[in-house]
Amino acid sequence: MLTINVSDLSPAQLQNYLHYAIAPRPICLATTIDQAGNVNLSPFSFFNLFSTNPPVCVFSPSRRVRDNTSKHTIENILEVKECVINIVNYDMVQQVSLSSTDYAKGINEFEKAGFTMLPSELVKPPRVAEAPVQMECVVTQVIHMGDKPGAGNLVLAEIKRIHINEAILDEEGKIDQVKIDLVARLGGDWYCRVTPENLFKVAKPLTTLGIGVDALPRGVRNSYVLTGNDLGMLGNIEKIPAEEEIDLVRHLPSVKEVMDATIGDAINRQRELHELAKEMLRQGDCMNALKVVLLES
Amino acid sequence: MLTINVSDLSPAQLQNYLHYAIAPRPICLATTIDQAGNVNLSPFSFFNLFSTNPPVCVFSPSRRVRDNTSKHTIENILEVKECVINIVNYDMVQQVSLSSTDYAKGINEFEKAGFTMLPSELVKPPRVAEAPVQMECVVTQVIHMGDKPGAGNLVLAEIKRIHINEAILDEEGKIDQVKIDLVARLGGDWYCRVTPENLFKVAKPLTTLGIGVDALPRGVRNSYVLTGNDLGMLGNIEKIPAEEEIDLVRHLPSVKEVMDATIGDAINRQRELHELAKEMLRQGDCMNALKVVLLES
Repeated sequence: MLTINVSDLSPAQLQNYLHYAIAPRPICLATTIDQAGNVNLSPFSFFNLFSTNPPVCVFSPSRRVRDNTSKHTIENILEVKECVINIVNYDMVQQVSLSSTDYAKGINEFEKAGFTMLPSELVKPPRVAEAPVQMECVVTQVIHMGDKPGAGNLVLAEIKRIHINEAILDEEGKIDQVKIDLVARLGGDWYCRVTPENLFKVAKPLTTLGIGVDALPRGVRNSYVLTGNDLGMLGNIEKIPAEEEIDLVRHLPSVKEVMDATIGDAINRQRELHELAKEMLRQGDCMNALKVVLLES
Repeated sequence: MLTINVSDLSPAQLQNYLHYAIAPRPICLATTIDQAGNVNLSPFSFFNLFSTNPPVCVFSPSRRVRDNTSKHTIENILEVKECVINIVNYDMVQQVSLSSTDYAKGINEFEKAGFTMLPSELVKPPRVAEAPVQMECVVTQVIHMGDKPGAGNLVLAEIKRIHINEAILDEEGKIDQVKIDLVARLGGDWYCRVTPENLFKVAKPLTTLGIGVDALPRGVRNSYVLTGNDLGMLGNIEKIPAEEEIDLVRHLPSVKEVMDATIGDAINRQRELHELAKEMLRQGDCMNALKVVLLES
């Protein structure tokens, strides 16, 4: 392991490690307005949902590392305590990047980035028409992290009204995770796009409590074949099956084949049973996988 | 657009929309400890980096929507104001999910999930040995969002020491965005994995200020061929080239071909020039793309 004291790094070095490690970060394209009515649009990846009741997002227009100046977004929010949080999809990403340019105060980044202003209904800052989801928010609190270059300013924004482009909804009227086509920020110039190829599901843990990896026999926990992910799936099963149930798994053709081929060869038998269980887990058949690994242990 | 007042939704409906829209969310696998020394481990996706100087992460162990109880993590943090934030990669994801099970207080989720405890150096809660990055943190502030089911508790954690598995570093000793193999949370049971296939780069906007999409001629902005992403790339160029420079692009064989094939056919000429520019943008040749779209406009 490389061990680093944060205080031993330059701000740029520290920022580099943190941007690459704490990722992918969702993107908030925030619209704000000053008292004179000048609109500002800027993207932030120090952003997330933090509460659903009340529904609260937090984003951070940090002090610039380059010259320790404040961003127009935070100046506007201190004048008019409202914002619209626009969600960013793949089709918008180049324009969103352009909107992060440091144009002078009073310049409307909607025009520079080529986005369309859409009036909000409850708050003064306009929405981005191109965004698949637009959330009208009231800013309830701002927390300053300091006055050094890179210091964050937490903006707590309570969501009041949500607008969703119907093209991203499924038949039940819920958001379709593929259709919304989200992007996120990582380190350096990296972004990632959420596609069917990189989406996967993990069944939520049981409310009835899984047996835990610690309930598996040592030979299973220390298997050279089974990975941490395999053990995690086995540990999520509700209870260890009874001896008789375990024994019944011997009748499965795939199990019978391993048993017949490894008579008198305990080491290879265990290895092959673990490989069979691994394949069963891959196919979602967790219970038979557990029975198989418990057979000879 | 579907427009929804937040107050018209049930907590579960609202949570569903927000979890699918504000994503992908990075995952914090947080280790905490109570005054008696009982260790707790639990994952949170209401988490992000919010400041780099001081380096501050925020995560939110919310009140449970199911029964409005508090999580052990927040109880522990109120007793011992320290935590370790462990970063989650693909190989850990099933065990991380298992560690989110509501085991009784005092049960160590390291054992249930099959993770290895590694002593920290500055704080009491242990690290997760399997995590590619482990950050020892001091909790500086906790902000409660309310007492209803789903109410967040913002935990502001200042990072003091960072441990990085050297296997994820590149030749320069920086984190390799592919090797770290991050995963993130989305709506429902969805996760996504960051892979070379879904990573892409967007060059940071110029510090010298791009011309902006509004500086492009109307015929370019309203093109049926060029997308918002294409316009964003064109608007990020520093200045409109001089007439003579634009004219020189006619000598490129690909441009010459279009001009020769579309004499006296202004509409098809513009369309074909835009398609050529689009291809140039795809190949990263933004300046020639700009010259091509400016040729006949």
